[in-house]
Amino acid sequence: MMLRIRRIPLDTLRENVAVLASNCVALRPEAFQAFKRLEVHNGARSIIASLDICHDHSMVAPDEIGLTEPAFRRLGVQEGGTVTIAPARSPQSLEHVRAKIVGETLDKHQIESIIHDIVGYRYSDMEIAAFLVACAGFLTTDELLHLTFAMADVGNHMTWNGPVVVDKHCIGGIPGNRTTMIVVPIVAAHGLTIPKTSSRAITSPAGTADTMEVLARVDLSMDEMRSVVEECNGCLIWGGHVNLSPADDILIGVERPLNLDTREQMVASIMSKKKAAGSTHLVIDLPVGPSAKVRDATEAMRLRKLFEFVADAMKIHVDVLVTDGAQPIGRGVGPILEAQDVMAVLANDQGAPADLREKSLQLAGRVLEADPAIRGGGGYGRARQLLDSGAALASMNRIIDAQGRAPGAAVAGPLTADICADADGIVASIDCFRIAQLARLAGAPLDRGAGLMMLKRVGDRVEAGEPLYRIHSAGESHFNFAVDAAGEVNGFALASPSLQRGAAQ
Amino acid sequence: MMLRIRRIPLDTLRENVAVLASNCVALRPEAFQAFKRLEVHNGARSIIASLDICHDHSMVAPDEIGLTEPAFRRLGVQEGGTVTIAPARSPQSLEHVRAKIVGETLDKHQIESIIHDIVGYRYSDMEIAAFLVACAGFLTTDELLHLTFAMADVGNHMTWNGPVVVDKHCIGGIPGNRTTMIVVPIVAAHGLTIPKTSSRAITSPAGTADTMEVLARVDLSMDEMRSVVEECNGCLIWGGHVNLSPADDILIGVERPLNLDTREQMVASIMSKKKAAGSTHLVIDLPVGPSAKVRDATEAMRLRKLFEFVADAMKIHVDVLVTDGAQPIGRGVGPILEAQDVMAVLANDQGAPADLREKSLQLAGRVLEADPAIRGGGGYGRARQLLDSGAALASMNRIIDAQGRAPGAAVAGPLTADICADADGIVASIDCFRIAQLARLAGAPLDRGAGLMMLKRVGDRVEAGEPLYRIHSAGESHFNFAVDAAGEVNGFALASPSLQRGAAQ
Repeated sequence: MMLRIRRIPLDTLRENVAVLASNCVALRPEAFQAFKRLEVHNGARSIIASLDICHDHSMVAPDEIGLTEPAFRRLGVQEGGTVTIAPARSPQSLEHVRAKIVGETLDKHQIESIIHDIVGYRYSDMEIAAFLVACAGFLTTDELLHLTFAMADVGNHMTWNGPVVVDKHCIGGIPGNRTTMIVVPIVAAHGLTIPKTSSRAITSPAGTADTMEVLARVDLSMDEMRSVVEECNGCLIWGGHVNLSPADDILIGVERPLNLDTREQMVASIMSKKKAAGSTHLVIDLPVGPSAKVRDATEAMRLRKLFEFVADAMKIHVDVLVTDGAQPIGRGVGPILEAQDVMAVLANDQGAPADLREKSLQLAGRVLEADPAIRGGGGYGRARQLLDSGAALASMNRIIDAQGRAPGAAVAGPLTADICADADGIVASIDCFRIAQLARLAGAPLDRGAGLMMLKRVGDRVEAGEPLYRIHSAGESHFNFAVDAAGEVNGFALASPSLQRGAAQ
Repeated sequence: MMLRIRRIPLDTLRENVAVLASNCVALRPEAFQAFKRLEVHNGARSIIASLDICHDHSMVAPDEIGLTEPAFRRLGVQEGGTVTIAPARSPQSLEHVRAKIVGETLDKHQIESIIHDIVGYRYSDMEIAAFLVACAGFLTTDELLHLTFAMADVGNHMTWNGPVVVDKHCIGGIPGNRTTMIVVPIVAAHGLTIPKTSSRAITSPAGTADTMEVLARVDLSMDEMRSVVEECNGCLIWGGHVNLSPADDILIGVERPLNLDTREQMVASIMSKKKAAGSTHLVIDLPVGPSAKVRDATEAMRLRKLFEFVADAMKIHVDVLVTDGAQPIGRGVGPILEAQDVMAVLANDQGAPADLREKSLQLAGRVLEADPAIRGGGGYGRARQLLDSGAALASMNRIIDAQGRAPGAAVAGPLTADICADADGIVASIDCFRIAQLARLAGAPLDRGAGLMMLKRVGDRVEAGEPLYRIHSAGESHFNFAVDAAGEVNGFALASPSLQRGAAQ
């Protein structure tokens, strides 16, 4: 029996949702409540959708089917067109997920079939969560390899001229750590190919793509990206249109709300993209600190070895740098505030944050070592030369112009509040996670000017009432969320100034 | 900032869903996409809801918040009233779920806090799935005990007069296995207290509650249940209004679509309800067969021991019967067809299914042994006496009248098709899972007359073209689903008649 399509103007994100009237002519929708999964066909294509039931027949009539935005788009239909429906069969690969849940090890083919079904939107969010949790329990190194290759295989693959294609990646978690936007122009100025794609923030207050977008267009297509890289040796774009790892895009959407950030998932996510991107040399920034993603040296070593293991299998040269992740890097936290830090470093401004400059030079130096012409250990010096001479700034401006310079001025959020020390003391620690959360509550990354301006660093002496950081926000609701939350827990721990540093710990 | 409430006539089942306009005045809803979780307050109460975004402002205006049915109901608000919103904090107990995922063992307090948050609708479906999958990986016996007690604790608790309160439970999976509706009247006729609550079908074609509803009202309140039990010694009602294990109701809603039926979850689910129901003696029917939930004797023994371990901790006398689960029991599969079988057995009709009668007598006999006055081994004889004498039928009629006899006649679905053998042979096996699935496709349990009438049993000789079973359906779509599916795989395996039985296997 045919049902007429009604477009429901609801964005249900990843998940396809179909809506049937409670007195639907084609079947009794309550019969599907336990499964909640429906197959919708339109001759050419079919999708699997979760089912909601509608009691208001002006919204969905008995001979209609409502399709929310993603379902409507993925089925590629017209409103008023017709479809048929049937109870959805579970994707066969769910059997492998169940096997994994009860402790079995999956082979290459089984993992490929799971990833294939996930990319085809045949898994519900619950089913994706089940797969991720089962993998989080344990994943053999073989399973990790299969997963990474399977994820790389379902994406687009890029190829580049020349034997050396470099990349740089940070595992994240440190607010303000926007080194990529300094490393890329340095490396491009040297002449190495660095076709950098970045993500937008998901749970952080700014991704590199969000920050770069303050300065230039970032939503480039594959062809546009290629032409920028040909002209400038490098680019700084959002990976969203390049579709390097569609599986990862979906998995991350479930991992993040569950806060499921396992070593193995992280490696599979990053390395699948690097393989698809055609990288030959990769430098990974792995910050370690008490509130960073990686908490201690042992954990860092295990993660480094996992990267090395997978990179070797992929024939990618990898260089993992364990860096100091004890506190935010630079001053700004949030797209515009971070972009200001980046441009200050590139312009060699006197007030530019020294920590951001130094870390970027270290990383750029390691990336430059991929060039056979650089003498061993000479990467750092070359990076510094390119930055100090203004070559890196010129390179950045070339990239900005090639991608499309953003019009207008970027201004920090006009609503501001200083969060102050409640006693005299020495800054003993700064909670990176809390700082990111507060910047996010202030409205970042969507309010590009929202975020935090850090005014004190670990080891600084402060007096009671002295500002620790400034909250910037554009809207009242977000401003209040952030100020209230900072009033509860401001993320700074102070040690008594009367004690010696050693004794304060 | 206050938002006006708009009721969205969508039933999103378990999950609270809130809808904000894409240009919402209170905050930018895209900011919440990664989390998708919102806290909605109305002064008195607050709920956590998942967020959808609406692009049509006639559906949800910028100063409104749309609440789908469950969210609207649980917040207990009026349309047009106002609420405030804030980004939802993750329930703290999710930390314990994450710990469990990575292999830690949880203590009593941690498990209690998880169950408490789940019952408070503070977990998304994804988060519930994460908890269930983590538990499916491994659960220590201590964790199982804590889980079972925690689930029992959040429900209503019933107490009964007298030292013996009996119950009977089947773990499910065998179509037509409607023994409860015969055991309860026998036991009640004897004079033991058997306050039986049953579930409706979730993935099966009929639950005991669905089948009993063909004959009588089943959605009784706690007080109504108590008065029926006082009058009749027993009852046969739906557990939905009695709220014995609200946690289980929610967990099952996620377990079933994931097909996550672990031993431990099954034991926690069943035993938490029995504890809350005040049972002192419990007989469990544990069918074993190649297409049953339990496949072999080893598995059955492990499950039996798990039941015994938890029952001992709860001070409930448990008697686990391992029964033959090789094929459906009785003839009918589906509410009305099964109710007809049950009444035929109780009325001692000549054509009543002998297997259903015999199994019910066995189970009733074991339940009756809880009566100290019954001589050891005498339960079966007493059960048979009560059935043959018509006392059980009279008891059933008392229960039906006390609960409220259903008006009108119950008629099997008028659309019928016989599914026939495609060759001569001997029925070697019947796939219980497939039979249940076909009955469900035919429309059971919601079409009460839909389902299957089984015409052949394992060991029967059949000729090509001879009917194996008859499909009954009330609506054309469902009828076609079932007939088409039975045409593909009919669930019967035939052995060649020319071979000896031994050789055919």
